[in-house]
Amino acid sequence: MELIENANKEAVRRMLAAEPILVDVVPAGDIVPDLHDQMILHAGPPTEWCRMCGPMQGAISGIAVFEGWAKDLKQAATAAAAGHFSFDANHHHDAVGPMTGMTTASQPVLVVENQKTGNQSYCTINEGLGKVMRFGGNDAEVLNRLAWIRDTLGPALGSALRDVGGIQLKPLIARGLSMGDEMHQRNVACSGLFLRAVAAAITKTNSDTRKISEVLDFISANDQFHLNIAMAMGKAIMDPVSHIEGSSIVTAMSRNGTDFGIRVSGTGNEWFTAPVEMPEGLYFAGYSEVDANPDMGDSTIIETIGLGGFAMGASPAVAGFVGAGAASEAAQYTRSMGEICASENPEWTIPALDYLGVPTGIDIRLVVDSGITPTINTGIAHRQPGIGQVGAGVVRAPMACFEKALQRLAEKLGIG
Amino acid sequence: MELIENANKEAVRRMLAAEPILVDVVPAGDIVPDLHDQMILHAGPPTEWCRMCGPMQGAISGIAVFEGWAKDLKQAATAAAAGHFSFDANHHHDAVGPMTGMTTASQPVLVVENQKTGNQSYCTINEGLGKVMRFGGNDAEVLNRLAWIRDTLGPALGSALRDVGGIQLKPLIARGLSMGDEMHQRNVACSGLFLRAVAAAITKTNSDTRKISEVLDFISANDQFHLNIAMAMGKAIMDPVSHIEGSSIVTAMSRNGTDFGIRVSGTGNEWFTAPVEMPEGLYFAGYSEVDANPDMGDSTIIETIGLGGFAMGASPAVAGFVGAGAASEAAQYTRSMGEICASENPEWTIPALDYLGVPTGIDIRLVVDSGITPTINTGIAHRQPGIGQVGAGVVRAPMACFEKALQRLAEKLGIG
Repeated sequence: MELIENANKEAVRRMLAAEPILVDVVPAGDIVPDLHDQMILHAGPPTEWCRMCGPMQGAISGIAVFEGWAKDLKQAATAAAAGHFSFDANHHHDAVGPMTGMTTASQPVLVVENQKTGNQSYCTINEGLGKVMRFGGNDAEVLNRLAWIRDTLGPALGSALRDVGGIQLKPLIARGLSMGDEMHQRNVACSGLFLRAVAAAITKTNSDTRKISEVLDFISANDQFHLNIAMAMGKAIMDPVSHIEGSSIVTAMSRNGTDFGIRVSGTGNEWFTAPVEMPEGLYFAGYSEVDANPDMGDSTIIETIGLGGFAMGASPAVAGFVGAGAASEAAQYTRSMGEICASENPEWTIPALDYLGVPTGIDIRLVVDSGITPTINTGIAHRQPGIGQVGAGVVRAPMACFEKALQRLAEKLGIG
Repeated sequence: MELIENANKEAVRRMLAAEPILVDVVPAGDIVPDLHDQMILHAGPPTEWCRMCGPMQGAISGIAVFEGWAKDLKQAATAAAAGHFSFDANHHHDAVGPMTGMTTASQPVLVVENQKTGNQSYCTINEGLGKVMRFGGNDAEVLNRLAWIRDTLGPALGSALRDVGGIQLKPLIARGLSMGDEMHQRNVACSGLFLRAVAAAITKTNSDTRKISEVLDFISANDQFHLNIAMAMGKAIMDPVSHIEGSSIVTAMSRNGTDFGIRVSGTGNEWFTAPVEMPEGLYFAGYSEVDANPDMGDSTIIETIGLGGFAMGASPAVAGFVGAGAASEAAQYTRSMGEICASENPEWTIPALDYLGVPTGIDIRLVVDSGITPTINTGIAHRQPGIGQVGAGVVRAPMACFEKALQRLAEKLGIG
């Protein structure tokens, strides 16, 4: 149908024309629209306390204590259950967050501006691995780290980014793809490239060498530091792709630990949800499937822009980490995702595949017709609050989301 | 012959057992054995002024001015021609140097210690790309940069390395191989990993934030910063492999811009030389083959330990940079080099080749029998002094070196 084809061409054109720049780090309360006091933004499509999974409830309790809205985790959980806090999806506030995806007013957020269209997107700063709030951690160690991020790391990064005039993210991602990153479960190259881009400016714009050393050490020690930057970038690229009449291109994929939801350009802000699936993957020592929470987080915005599981061919080393088979077979994931996408990205290419562009623009028609659902590289949280990450794996987006979205799009176009 | 087989097994065992640690940066005059005043160490097998190529003569003149042994380049060249300076090969002083390979007393050197055997090796710090002394550059810009390296960068790196207790290089290289580096013409991943390993310590052990910022900026801006670290590591690994009776394993490959020379374990310190070949490669804008100097530098120690051209399969992106054909064909170089090597390195593996170890231990018998000579990824210098790098390419080690070495080994074993 020509309307859909033309709409999808426009969707892909907007994706490829995006100019995402990481421009600043500022407190969420100063910049995230409609983020008020006692309000907690979370990952995934909208949900409510009684439907939230264990790690998300744990994170909610933790962040309420962190913000000073409760004196301890127990009081926080009681207040949450009693409706004392407002909840909403990050995606409804120009934001994204990994795993539990807690965004509250005092936390610093990375600001990515799409300079082609002028919109901005926001994501908190990556806390590192193990027992961290995004995986449901909520004890003193977790909250103290968040306080240090708020008081030291955030301001230091903000001043450095303003000093360098922002960092262009498209060339950084292009380079990372030539260095084995797929930007979802493997960000070691981009994290190093990011450090190179800001290390001197962090030093130049701050005077306390002890604090500078702490900041450089924190960034240096975290292989996934760049994940949250890539997520804010993904949101900044995809938001202007929304609301194109007739377009069947996916503009967001996201999960809250209970539901998997997608949004599609031609159906605007509507979520199409289905029960989220369990990742299949590899577990850290001492953990197994019985400990795993179902899939969670806004980080699937990475796959929405053609990276993560879609760019597996760039990252043979990640295949082993997420239990996706032999390294030499990683390219098959990329080729398979090419079957459900409208185009390829000529600026984000995979050297080992003779510079094939990553699959770009998930078309719900192709998903439904082919029976191939998006492959997602994901971290695995413990199902109980307070524990943290227990593994990493591969998960599929549920087909029902795409079927529902296609039905709704057809209704809108009067071709039901 | 059993003596040779057993000797080669011991040679490979020593290569794989090496524990190279980057421990310090100190002035060459304080640590390089027998490096006296008015003495200049150069790359490649030994040579003399009248046989040196243009860029090496240019570098000699420049370093003599830098050291204060001549008031200008003309006086320096006259003094060099008159025999006022002593010349010797870096390799005769536990050292290596890229391209022209100038090592003199006041320059800081990276110190790599092989903690398995206790020996140390030395290499100056990488100056960056373009017009630099290793490519024959010698004007005020080049000499001022060397002065800053001597006065600011070297001491800052030394204090940082002592603070962190040194950096283990084998795991760093292993990681770099999973990130697209082959460590000769592509070091962007390892340079980033190195920055991550020292950035916080540089800040912690220095107080002048302006100087710290300069140092972090210099390391961050140089994709080849890690090359010289890899070279010192290569020398530290291979020196203990020398002097094994009967071994036909290559312990060094090196070139001075006129001669290509190799050393073989069973023939000790003897050099086997042949005229060096011209690289085939790609030229920077404005330059072509007519500008190119023949191949030069001690950096072939990288291939001697199984990296560089031998690890091309890890680095599809470098294939295009050095003009080695399609990215997807990079693996063929690695497989071909496997045919002339005694073993593979189980700790340095290539994810895309399902973790095949890099080819390890070049056996001169296999080179001569197969007719396959080592593939080297190399930079190309302008043939005239004072200009610098004009391209990058691939070059083959001359077969005559291996034939001469094999004849000499046979004579020593009485099997002429």
